[in-house]
Amino acid sequence: MSTLLPLASGPEGRHALRPLLDTVLDALHAGERARGGPLPAGGPEAVAARVRDAVGDVLPDEGDPDALRALVHALAEGAADPAHPLCVAHLHCPPLAVATAADLAVSALNPSMDSWDQAPAASELEELVTRALANEVYAEAPRGAGLYRYAAPSRGTIGPHRPAADTAQNHPDALITTGGTESNQLALLLAREVHGPSVRLVVGANAHHTLPRAAWLLGLPDPVVVPAPAGTLDPAALDQALTALSGPLLVAATAGTTDAGLIDPLPDIAALCRTHGARLHIDAAYGGPLLFSHRHRAKLTGLAAADTVTLDLHKLGWQPVPAGVLAVKDAHDLAALHHHADYLNADDDTEAGLPDLLGRSLHTTRRPDALKIAVTLKTLGRTGLGTLIDHICDRAREFAALVQEHPGYELYDTPTISTVLFRPTTATDDAVAAVRRQLLTDGRAVLGRARLDGRLWLKATLLNPATRPGDLAGLLKLVEGTTPR
Amino acid sequence: MSTLLPLASGPEGRHALRPLLDTVLDALHAGERARGGPLPAGGPEAVAARVRDAVGDVLPDEGDPDALRALVHALAEGAADPAHPLCVAHLHCPPLAVATAADLAVSALNPSMDSWDQAPAASELEELVTRALANEVYAEAPRGAGLYRYAAPSRGTIGPHRPAADTAQNHPDALITTGGTESNQLALLLAREVHGPSVRLVVGANAHHTLPRAAWLLGLPDPVVVPAPAGTLDPAALDQALTALSGPLLVAATAGTTDAGLIDPLPDIAALCRTHGARLHIDAAYGGPLLFSHRHRAKLTGLAAADTVTLDLHKLGWQPVPAGVLAVKDAHDLAALHHHADYLNADDDTEAGLPDLLGRSLHTTRRPDALKIAVTLKTLGRTGLGTLIDHICDRAREFAALVQEHPGYELYDTPTISTVLFRPTTATDDAVAAVRRQLLTDGRAVLGRARLDGRLWLKATLLNPATRPGDLAGLLKLVEGTTPR
Repeated sequence: MSTLLPLASGPEGRHALRPLLDTVLDALHAGERARGGPLPAGGPEAVAARVRDAVGDVLPDEGDPDALRALVHALAEGAADPAHPLCVAHLHCPPLAVATAADLAVSALNPSMDSWDQAPAASELEELVTRALANEVYAEAPRGAGLYRYAAPSRGTIGPHRPAADTAQNHPDALITTGGTESNQLALLLAREVHGPSVRLVVGANAHHTLPRAAWLLGLPDPVVVPAPAGTLDPAALDQALTALSGPLLVAATAGTTDAGLIDPLPDIAALCRTHGARLHIDAAYGGPLLFSHRHRAKLTGLAAADTVTLDLHKLGWQPVPAGVLAVKDAHDLAALHHHADYLNADDDTEAGLPDLLGRSLHTTRRPDALKIAVTLKTLGRTGLGTLIDHICDRAREFAALVQEHPGYELYDTPTISTVLFRPTTATDDAVAAVRRQLLTDGRAVLGRARLDGRLWLKATLLNPATRPGDLAGLLKLVEGTTPR
Repeated sequence: MSTLLPLASGPEGRHALRPLLDTVLDALHAGERARGGPLPAGGPEAVAARVRDAVGDVLPDEGDPDALRALVHALAEGAADPAHPLCVAHLHCPPLAVATAADLAVSALNPSMDSWDQAPAASELEELVTRALANEVYAEAPRGAGLYRYAAPSRGTIGPHRPAADTAQNHPDALITTGGTESNQLALLLAREVHGPSVRLVVGANAHHTLPRAAWLLGLPDPVVVPAPAGTLDPAALDQALTALSGPLLVAATAGTTDAGLIDPLPDIAALCRTHGARLHIDAAYGGPLLFSHRHRAKLTGLAAADTVTLDLHKLGWQPVPAGVLAVKDAHDLAALHHHADYLNADDDTEAGLPDLLGRSLHTTRRPDALKIAVTLKTLGRTGLGTLIDHICDRAREFAALVQEHPGYELYDTPTISTVLFRPTTATDDAVAAVRRQLLTDGRAVLGRARLDGRLWLKATLLNPATRPGDLAGLLKLVEGTTPR
């Protein structure tokens, strides 16, 4: 049995994995060569047909020993590869090799974060990562008292994985999630549990669609949407809305909008929330990692005033999906997630010192995504991460300058993070949409789209540190050659 | 930049990954040797201290090129390794090497399932997998008309990723999830959206804790809990409960309880749901893969009558976490998840033929866990999967027989799937709990616990195909040596 179907771990794991990993690397390479560009050519139906031909019956009666090679080849041949410099549509980053390699260790050992006896070391690794990230988010004192490092609770008495012995001590914490969507859901859930089910979400029209969707999911009242005509939440409009509303309120601001990478005026919004007694969530899924950059972290001033903060390390953090985080200013809020299941956290086990992990997530079985994050943070350090972020932001500014200098293009604005919106000056919205689809169908470029100022723009979200200025000049030429005259 | 911090994909990906993967394999091996057993010795504080010493500062100012090796070593040294034959506490399986290798391809290419232009081939692969699994669950006709294969809709007109052109056609479908917890949440959400927010969950006392938790999450009324004194849902008690209740009802049955691996009387429950007009969900997170075994699939008779079915391939399917599935009898129910976000599924893009993927999940960014599942299904085929499952079930029966023959032990019952509950005949509940913790602290065995018949049992959940009968005899000896006389 074990020679026919080797396991990834245990005494034979290493010998079993090595040749299979070679198969994967070779199939990835061959698939990439067969693709020959940022995405496969031919459009959805042609791509789907090639996948069906390559796979055949996915659940045959008898097994096929060539399946690994064939399916990985099909995946790679049909991928929109974020490591290709012309794949720039979305907040879809190319992962670092070191993070990807770390993720293999997790797949092989398969720890699960719902009980200590499935994840003895992984649970401590997660605690180190969440504490470091909570510290990073809340290092700035809420009332402008300069930088501080929050004092970690003394070990063995209280901490994220242990019941708080000293309940008077208020300290930040963070949870690992599957991404911004889940982080936003959790932020709303914590608000509901702290303020009751009538809590009302107040959100800018520029906010991510998952915020209103989370309100629907959790059975909360319909959100109040505040206009954001310039792409960011307008404090005057927010003030008006908060003045008109009564009952418990949760304001959600954005640090890095999906469409344009804009950051809401966080200090103003935080001040309004204090004045009106509203809870504040900041969705910094995109912009959050600017914290690691000396040059850019001031753009996030005000972040530490938020009760909860979403950030994603599978966007501006070069992680394989998923690598989401929810930072929480007051760890007591997490009591809402406490949960009991006798087979995982029986009272006598907890009393005897077995850590209770179940309240760290709404999931039960859960992969330790903290490992790849920990490996990346430690391999790069703040300096390395900051350098990567600075580099990406520089590239976006260079691309924006290229657009601005080009007589055939209009630039939406100088990028705040790494998103550049542009459009052929004379094209209609329909033509802009058609250009994007034509480039997709040709397999030549993966560009995004965004509607702002009442017009449709092409969107380039730069996240690839290997992209060179020449690649971006080539992208402009490509769009030019595809735009009807 | 790119030579200092290589990416996992693109032209340099293969060369960058290979040495890092070697580092991971070597560190996994060295960590496992340092551990020397199924889990690290010393208990939670000692393990945590070793991890902290190995990691040091997880976010230093300057990077550390040795971080990958050091952290993977710490993870492996401190793992509860499900590939070790004495790690049998939970539904925590050792992954197959072939599935683990496939998962690497996903980490490297980083497709995201929220739009076609981030996952051109991955979206089609997912469709093939979900169709095959929906077919497997619903192959048995709901009204006992014998086996059928559901007719897949003709390509290009309708299908899971496309709007249904022929809305009269009712066919099954499936979603990929992060596990049973999310599948159960989605099952309740679909019930809420079909029947309204007053829908009431009716659940056995033997059901998984995530079902009541999902009702809380979604703002549904408090569930009605039906007693299950024998470990399975009692049809007479269910009939009584359904008779007493009014309004829309959702009954949740279990195929493979967490505590004992028992299967509720599904045909009886399905008949009661028909009689009372209740919707039916079956949580087959554990038992679902019995479908692949000719010998065991009859245990799931009645499954196809459910409106929704949870199954997890990271339990009896040997996948790295996560690999969850929710099968849905009528694909129309999934309309509740339809969602619009202009940057991902603008109307003109959908009309022009770009598949709309956003309604396939509550997540936005989402890893294609379908690849490892597809590779496993096709590498093994039904025959290979069935053989593995039969083998595991045989091993559990052999272990149960060992227990039964041993004068010092009491057996709870002959296993239905692969869970064996046993206890030293003369021990108190406190002693049983202490034995389990002592084995954990010693790093000698990872056993589970379950309270049934008013007593505490030791639980062995057999999922490791490499376990030999001698290992299990050794486990009994270990427990014997640890039990106070």
